[in-house]
Amino acid sequence: MADAALFEFLHTEMVAELWAHHSDPGPGGQKMSLSVLEGMGFRVGQALGERLPQETLAFREELDVLKFLCKDLWVAVFQKQMDSLRTNHQGTYVLQDNSFPLLIRMASGLQYLEEAPKFLAFTCGLLRGTLSTLGIKSLVTASVASLPTCKFQVVIQKT
Amino acid sequence: MADAALFEFLHTEMVAELWAHHSDPGPGGQKMSLSVLEGMGFRVGQALGERLPQETLAFREELDVLKFLCKDLWVAVFQKQMDSLRTNHQGTYVLQDNSFPLLIRMASGLQYLEEAPKFLAFTCGLLRGTLSTLGIKSLVTASVASLPTCKFQVVIQKT
Repeated sequence: MADAALFEFLHTEMVAELWAHHSDPGPGGQKMSLSVLEGMGFRVGQALGERLPQETLAFREELDVLKFLCKDLWVAVFQKQMDSLRTNHQGTYVLQDNSFPLLIRMASGLQYLEEAPKFLAFTCGLLRGTLSTLGIKSLVTASVASLPTCKFQVVIQKT
Repeated sequence: MADAALFEFLHTEMVAELWAHHSDPGPGGQKMSLSVLEGMGFRVGQALGERLPQETLAFREELDVLKFLCKDLWVAVFQKQMDSLRTNHQGTYVLQDNSFPLLIRMASGLQYLEEAPKFLAFTCGLLRGTLSTLGIKSLVTASVASLPTCKFQVVIQKT
């Protein structure tokens, strides 16, 4: 038995529950559920960020923080590392997971692509929340070109 | 960083979310949220039950199954074992956790006791769901006399 499974099952239930009870069938209702999920992810990310070992909190290079998300955060939550990290060196980072665990169970047909956003919102929030605890304001979005590969785009908000 | 924390944070968010958006302030709305949480726990328990190693599924003594919940399931979810297991040998079991992780963060004043049920519903469902996968129908309730000690009562439903 594994905690990884526990998190995945719980995440599945959360998505299903929010979709069943919250959403109007229209795009407005879906948007609301996505933002609820993103918000839950944000607060969980914040809380996880606060539990980081103190030495981790000492790094202040933006790139180090992003590497930390790709490695430590991803291992803690998904038991694997992110597959690649790219940057334009101007505050935009693309984190790619070639087999994102929360998408793996979905059949990989094109017709399921439109279902993908609801399985990504929580994790976008998780990244944004952890960054927030580490002192970095950001916007995080996700896109899927072919299942189960997923790209998270992090745009740092300069103050 | 720990998966245990991840589960706890996620559980906290789930409870808060269901209370914020689902509940009418009255007892009817609260009952609905409790049953939603219990249902989510049930399905997560079922799914976890299906991931058990095959040899585990071979035991058929009722007491062995309950011991399994107290040990293996509890460790997988809460990183600790249940503190005691009692039975009347007539299908009723009382599982006691002297410091139930989902209650530990609550201040331990008497005035918080009434808040406890919403932090127990998911876990009642989790026990019922795992038992269901193992072929046992049950009713599971929880009670708290003094925080953070918690008793789960499992009553086996004979068919």
